[in-house]
Amino acid sequence: MPSQRTDPQAKRGELAILGQIRARAGRSRFPSLALGIGDDCALLRPQPGQELAVTTDLTTCGTHFRLDWHSPESAGHRALARGLSDLAAMGAKPVAAFLSLGLPREFANPTGPWSASWAGRFVDGLLNLARTYKTPLAGGDLSETPIPLADIVLIGSVPAGQALLRSTSRPGDLLYVTGWLGGGAAALPHFDRLSKQRQRKNQARTGGLTPSNIPKHLKSLLDRHLYPQPRIAQGLRLRTRSLASAAIDLSDGLSTDLTHLCEESRVAAEVDAALLPIHPGADLSYALNGGDDYELLFTAAPGARIPRQIARVPIRCIGRILPARKGQPTITLLTPEGRQPVTPQGWEHFR
Amino acid sequence: MPSQRTDPQAKRGELAILGQIRARAGRSRFPSLALGIGDDCALLRPQPGQELAVTTDLTTCGTHFRLDWHSPESAGHRALARGLSDLAAMGAKPVAAFLSLGLPREFANPTGPWSASWAGRFVDGLLNLARTYKTPLAGGDLSETPIPLADIVLIGSVPAGQALLRSTSRPGDLLYVTGWLGGGAAALPHFDRLSKQRQRKNQARTGGLTPSNIPKHLKSLLDRHLYPQPRIAQGLRLRTRSLASAAIDLSDGLSTDLTHLCEESRVAAEVDAALLPIHPGADLSYALNGGDDYELLFTAAPGARIPRQIARVPIRCIGRILPARKGQPTITLLTPEGRQPVTPQGWEHFR
Repeated sequence: MPSQRTDPQAKRGELAILGQIRARAGRSRFPSLALGIGDDCALLRPQPGQELAVTTDLTTCGTHFRLDWHSPESAGHRALARGLSDLAAMGAKPVAAFLSLGLPREFANPTGPWSASWAGRFVDGLLNLARTYKTPLAGGDLSETPIPLADIVLIGSVPAGQALLRSTSRPGDLLYVTGWLGGGAAALPHFDRLSKQRQRKNQARTGGLTPSNIPKHLKSLLDRHLYPQPRIAQGLRLRTRSLASAAIDLSDGLSTDLTHLCEESRVAAEVDAALLPIHPGADLSYALNGGDDYELLFTAAPGARIPRQIARVPIRCIGRILPARKGQPTITLLTPEGRQPVTPQGWEHFR
Repeated sequence: MPSQRTDPQAKRGELAILGQIRARAGRSRFPSLALGIGDDCALLRPQPGQELAVTTDLTTCGTHFRLDWHSPESAGHRALARGLSDLAAMGAKPVAAFLSLGLPREFANPTGPWSASWAGRFVDGLLNLARTYKTPLAGGDLSETPIPLADIVLIGSVPAGQALLRSTSRPGDLLYVTGWLGGGAAALPHFDRLSKQRQRKNQARTGGLTPSNIPKHLKSLLDRHLYPQPRIAQGLRLRTRSLASAAIDLSDGLSTDLTHLCEESRVAAEVDAALLPIHPGADLSYALNGGDDYELLFTAAPGARIPRQIARVPIRCIGRILPARKGQPTITLLTPEGRQPVTPQGWEHFR
């Protein structure tokens, strides 16, 4: 609101911060981006015959990251990874990202240089991942908020009518997953323990965990959570080779996301516990109900020739799609002890 | 994060809220929207030869609206109006909106029905304005936050190469504005006074001001703030008739937004105070530095035949564009007392 604030102590106003982000976002040319940061809107120039896939993901401190667990770089990386993972699930190629950033005043006006500030490091983590996937930061907004938060918008490109959907799976299809399950969530108890250790030693609590205070044997598990790799290449391959009949990304956990896919496709599914690619350090419960894996879950016709890996990420068949029947569970787990119904127990806000 | 919460008291989870929003967003067909709410991404189908204009606006409680001033419907209307106004400034036609909504737990799990909840009424206010501009709500996200907030993404369509920009004004151009200035900000002291009156009478403080407690003679001024009308029709006309050489919307205040236009175009500007269309109830200072007007500020070549009104909104010439000169102010105000430099004093976060 336009009541004026004139605080002579304020070190860094909105325009200065936006200028910093604009400078860091760079001036590389991208064929699909006609106009980037600096006007009322950015301008995208879609290629003929392409549809644009659009997703927004709101990442908030306390819910999606914690100041004592996640470094600012990890928080920025994870915020962008969530959106890229949604593009991957549609088989879309990233075109542009937009960042609406909410910052408490002390995060916006720190004492040191921008690149050492929480916000500067958050943006750096985000831009590092954006560069990996050749995704320009094309715009956004900035506002004061009681906690740091970021809404990330990702826009991707996909030939018209060819996007992978949640709603197109059919009974008889086989069920596949990329990579490994459960690692993203199995890391959490370690963060909790390591953070409490630091607290007891009176070490800084708001910089997140850094490589120096993560034990070597935990690094791969914790990196799985801190720096998830969206499966863009895998989604693109599934789409261009017409391999998948339906797809969704695993952000909220297999039991929840498979339920979404089944509901949108009006089918049921059977998962074989013995076939789940459980991440080292995780267990069946994490694999079923943990979130933050950012793998792709997809279905394919029984005759489809699914490669055993795509871009060095393994692909595993974990079950099959069944007709939905009244009174029958949407998801059934096959275990040595027999068939068990699975209820969605992944992440849901406000539950 | 995927740690599980199972609160038996919780009345309404994320999926239920998203279901409510999805139902309210409706199932109307829009030619440019191939797929709406319900998958990992929405799918837009741009028409051949069109560019897409994209803008994000983060609206937060305490900064952009107040629970004791703004009804939830007004907060939702204003959130969407900010984005639509950015599209108007580019001469773009709205194609789709996305809403990332942050809610405190008590806003998400109220005791009454969804349509009577703060979030339900916010979404209704937003969707009412969206219907006016035939803009489908095509997706979004939901998260728990300490204060209510909303990031609004607007996507519009504009023929390639024809968007109105901030950066293309030239010395010699004349400076125009749509509608009236200063009303959006001049309403604020009245909100303050009316809210304190209610407080003294021990009336509810969090429902915002309603028509019943706004005196009749203030209604038009206060509505100017509560329900701003984005100048979509005016932006489209300026673009299709090739009337404007540059444009920006007045969200932060004339002195700030004209400075943006001048900086991006590398020009200076002269504003004649006597020509400013000051809203009844406002004054010169509000007209120069108040925000929230959501009018269009544009420039046009001296020979351009600018209509006196577009879609019943008056268009006024308020000054002219000059070459930028070192040591000279970017904006000069002509008054009966002479020429005065104007510094940007509109809204800036973290200042």
